[in-house]
Amino acid sequence: MRNIDEHTITDAVLQSIAGTKDARLRQVMTSLVTHLHDFVREVKLTEAEWKAGIDFLTATGQKCSDTRQEFILLSDTLGVSMLTIALNHAKPAGATEATVFGPFHTIDAPHVEQGADIAHGAPGLPMFVHAVVRGPDGEAVADAEVDVWQADDDGLYDVQRPELGDARRARAVLRTDAHGAVRFRSIVPTAYPIPVDGPVGAMLAATGRHPWRPAHLHFMIRADGYQPLTTHIFRDGDAYLDSDVVFGVRSSLVGDYVEHAPGSAPDGSVVDTTFFTLDQAFTLARA
Amino acid sequence: MRNIDEHTITDAVLQSIAGTKDARLRQVMTSLVTHLHDFVREVKLTEAEWKAGIDFLTATGQKCSDTRQEFILLSDTLGVSMLTIALNHAKPAGATEATVFGPFHTIDAPHVEQGADIAHGAPGLPMFVHAVVRGPDGEAVADAEVDVWQADDDGLYDVQRPELGDARRARAVLRTDAHGAVRFRSIVPTAYPIPVDGPVGAMLAATGRHPWRPAHLHFMIRADGYQPLTTHIFRDGDAYLDSDVVFGVRSSLVGDYVEHAPGSAPDGSVVDTTFFTLDQAFTLARA
Repeated sequence: MRNIDEHTITDAVLQSIAGTKDARLRQVMTSLVTHLHDFVREVKLTEAEWKAGIDFLTATGQKCSDTRQEFILLSDTLGVSMLTIALNHAKPAGATEATVFGPFHTIDAPHVEQGADIAHGAPGLPMFVHAVVRGPDGEAVADAEVDVWQADDDGLYDVQRPELGDARRARAVLRTDAHGAVRFRSIVPTAYPIPVDGPVGAMLAATGRHPWRPAHLHFMIRADGYQPLTTHIFRDGDAYLDSDVVFGVRSSLVGDYVEHAPGSAPDGSVVDTTFFTLDQAFTLARA
Repeated sequence: MRNIDEHTITDAVLQSIAGTKDARLRQVMTSLVTHLHDFVREVKLTEAEWKAGIDFLTATGQKCSDTRQEFILLSDTLGVSMLTIALNHAKPAGATEATVFGPFHTIDAPHVEQGADIAHGAPGLPMFVHAVVRGPDGEAVADAEVDVWQADDDGLYDVQRPELGDARRARAVLRTDAHGAVRFRSIVPTAYPIPVDGPVGAMLAATGRHPWRPAHLHFMIRADGYQPLTTHIFRDGDAYLDSDVVFGVRSSLVGDYVEHAPGSAPDGSVVDTTFFTLDQAFTLARA
């Protein structure tokens, strides 16, 4: 400990945490310290760069609030969130893949009946969704909870609009019928940029990256006897499918959003604007 | 980009930053992303652990204020600060080694004359310091700026005592005389714990570590024609010399603090308590 240099310091730090009682914490910290030191040595980090790193992390923490989580945004944009999901949600063949949860889910979405208009006034072109939830053998999964949420035509979730207060729109919880189906009306999702007025926005600009996510609908599906599924259904043809800023796209998760001229909608109503339909099947893995 | 898995995602992230204009930033980010992903894969980080990490980093950022830098404390306690210093301050043989700067230096320390009592009321046993600054050939370095600061007998720096306001004590800036020497009176430093009322304190507790730093006096020495030196002089015999929580000890930086019975002090005064003397030589490297 008294003659530490740039090579022996890693062992000194690992030695200091060798007494960690929780074996898993010891394992995680050992790997973290080893890789952190390897990074610093590999780039021969300067003191000015170290200071810039301290300032960046501090600003990222201070940007966080009840309605903003800048460290999740950092994790998302560095691919760490999606990597963690991939490591923990390897699905058997045939099961629908998982993708990022994102920071915009809420636990107070309205529970609605089949056929409801969940847009609840959110701006956007109408969309009629028919989703079916199945098990690995193709069996319909009845009474599954289907939690759906999305951004509006301005690229904003309800929680990003202070003027809405606690009002919820373009999100809902439904239950599948005996055929494993839910039907609802909403608006068609559009691509949107993640918030760029913080340190993560500065990082994206400095590394020559755009802040856009391709249009998508979020789904979280839970049913007894099956693994929960958190995923998106992306919109085919979106310009950002190949450069999602949070690395969440899977080709299997690109849905078939069909555009229709004004006229009769699947729910029997007449729509006087262009509208969309989406038919989507989900396959859950057995618990 | 549409078929990323836990192996290919690292290349996808690196590809996304390949357009970074600043070549050094591209190098640093490439190494950072690679090691960060390797860490996550190596431990197979769970989603609960990922969430705990996000919460820890957020709390660390939110603990920072004008008078507290929790991310520097984290860097110090994980050995990253000392590693960065070691990488950037390799000294030629014979030159005094550098160690951590720490968070307690201020730029408004009083400039004082030779022989001054810099304790300025800070509690502690008296100490009389005689320090000599030399160049690599043994030459005296006259008119060098010697910035010295330390904790008091309660283990606190002045800036950690809100009751002091902007008043400064147990810190000063002196200039060496024609023989390269400075003389001043202060108090003998004692060991102290780093602040543990934040996330870093929780990390130390969880990993079975104590929060103590061995007693030391900080020196920052600058002179024309020589490399600046930021270092400590540790107190021989301190119980924490072999387990400094920020990994800052070097055997060459352990000084000879001599204890004396009450009586005549080196400055000719009579001291009615136990007191200490410290004679210390510093050797600067050529610029």
